[in-house]
Amino acid sequence: MSEISELGEFGLIDRLTAGLKNQNQASELAVGDDAAVLSYPDTRVLVTTDMLLENVHFDLIYVPLKHLGYKAAVVNFSDIYAMNGTPRQITVGLGISKRFTVEHIEELYAGIRLACQIYGVDIVGGDTCASHQGLVISVTCIGDAKADDVVRRSGAADTDLICVSGDLGAAYMGLQLLEREKVASAGRKDFVPDFAGKEYLVERQLKPEARRDIVEALAKEGIRPTSMIDVSDGLSSELIHICRDSNVGCRVYEDRIPIDYQTAVMAEELNMNLVTAALNGGEDYELLFTVPLTDREKVEKIEGVKVIGYITRPELGSVLVTRDGEGEIPLTAQGWNPLK
Amino acid sequence: MSEISELGEFGLIDRLTAGLKNQNQASELAVGDDAAVLSYPDTRVLVTTDMLLENVHFDLIYVPLKHLGYKAAVVNFSDIYAMNGTPRQITVGLGISKRFTVEHIEELYAGIRLACQIYGVDIVGGDTCASHQGLVISVTCIGDAKADDVVRRSGAADTDLICVSGDLGAAYMGLQLLEREKVASAGRKDFVPDFAGKEYLVERQLKPEARRDIVEALAKEGIRPTSMIDVSDGLSSELIHICRDSNVGCRVYEDRIPIDYQTAVMAEELNMNLVTAALNGGEDYELLFTVPLTDREKVEKIEGVKVIGYITRPELGSVLVTRDGEGEIPLTAQGWNPLK
Repeated sequence: MSEISELGEFGLIDRLTAGLKNQNQASELAVGDDAAVLSYPDTRVLVTTDMLLENVHFDLIYVPLKHLGYKAAVVNFSDIYAMNGTPRQITVGLGISKRFTVEHIEELYAGIRLACQIYGVDIVGGDTCASHQGLVISVTCIGDAKADDVVRRSGAADTDLICVSGDLGAAYMGLQLLEREKVASAGRKDFVPDFAGKEYLVERQLKPEARRDIVEALAKEGIRPTSMIDVSDGLSSELIHICRDSNVGCRVYEDRIPIDYQTAVMAEELNMNLVTAALNGGEDYELLFTVPLTDREKVEKIEGVKVIGYITRPELGSVLVTRDGEGEIPLTAQGWNPLK
Repeated sequence: MSEISELGEFGLIDRLTAGLKNQNQASELAVGDDAAVLSYPDTRVLVTTDMLLENVHFDLIYVPLKHLGYKAAVVNFSDIYAMNGTPRQITVGLGISKRFTVEHIEELYAGIRLACQIYGVDIVGGDTCASHQGLVISVTCIGDAKADDVVRRSGAADTDLICVSGDLGAAYMGLQLLEREKVASAGRKDFVPDFAGKEYLVERQLKPEARRDIVEALAKEGIRPTSMIDVSDGLSSELIHICRDSNVGCRVYEDRIPIDYQTAVMAEELNMNLVTAALNGGEDYELLFTVPLTDREKVEKIEGVKVIGYITRPELGSVLVTRDGEGEIPLTAQGWNPLK
């Protein structure tokens, strides 16, 4: 194990960024100057940023550092895909407390580098400093899209179909499971957590993926969504963002919301409301988007995409139609309130 | 005073970003979607990021929140100017602990907004979350420059003149002064800190400016520096960056290093070595750059710029020639080692 103080900031950065090769033509100059230099003559530049703080966004008792690095990068890629763009570069800010060794930070960085390699993204800059408290990770992602391809939250129109990729609520259930095993393990050195039959939930929480495949499939089918957002705070919250920004309402059907079998089993085991988990759980990093009614056939061809409802006039509100088809529940932007 | 939890994340963001108007054509879509949308068809895009952590980079006992916000923005602008570019947009990541009220964060944001207004920069995105420990500020700045105008650290050549703007060491001395008054004030409610005659030092530490004026003056004189860097870690450290990246050596003259009168008085008062403070103090946010020997007359016309030495062949090393002209001290990249 090596002390970070022996290497110093510059030495640590050299070690973390050794052998980095740019994968994008747009990355003219990466790490090692006052700023990175990028070239985007033909496209719009997309920028997004996310901060992850220890014990707020992650608990190192059950989050492996490599997974954490991977997730920190991927959640930013997800925001770029949600604009119908392609992530190209990231900068990485790290606040590191004394209890971490060089090897710890290399592990974290290995996860970031793996995500970048898989998604074709370049690490072009960063800032590494000491933290007196926990680990701080701040990633900013730059991407691009042709001007006409950019999809905002504000373009949904009456009668548009509401679609979502993958399934919802699994990452939230994974978090509940990890928390339960953490409590059970407290003070027991020989404890082995039991994730049998629930591997999918744990993976969704610890190692989410961004839906590049969906963005590519939409392009292949010639579909340009009228609005799009990634599901980070929960379906309900994201629907309300789209409805507010597009000045529309929506009707979403409870029995159409895609939920994995493991998610349902876990909800039952924990005696939690399954639909609440799917609506408000968050961290799914699926894509929620709207398409014109005329694209129904095309969108139904895409594997892993489900039509869950449709856009209405604003005065009809944003509602969930319950499973029996009789009740209507107004959606609320509950999401996470980490500031509470 | 308002509790942040009453507003929630979205409410807080709405309040902080209310009335923001874009000042740059390149900012097509700012706050309020998954990512900002920028347009840079004719220029290179520059990206830099900096993280500020409470009790590592700032002490709220003597740093007013508005100044802190101002500084967090300006230090990023400085990096873009150091590439010979123009800052255009920032994203702001904030980690906020429970002891802050809405008004506190508005104060911090007012400083960020003021800096952006003065330097013509747009706030285009961010992330706001809870922090269980101190305040965390992560700013990423995007700027631009024509491809031919970008100045890296790697272009310095033998016989080039080494120039620096402003004066050095004052911010470091300001920090020493603030720390001294903090110690003196401990436990005393009636304590009034004494900054008389040292206002410049305090201002340099708490409210630094980025040298836009120097970048503009260089353009006006038709000078394209062969290399440039901003002085954030200390002159010595920055000189070594340029020499290493350009594969050259340097000779810098102790008696040419610009030092303000207040800095000298303070060093004497604290019994500290003045040259060490100027060489290794850091946080000056001045520009250090090299120009061809043929630009001597033009560069000497620029107010506030001083030629402090020249570039040599690499085998001659990086040295400081002492005041008496007899000694030569090898420069070391001491800088800050916040990881120690």
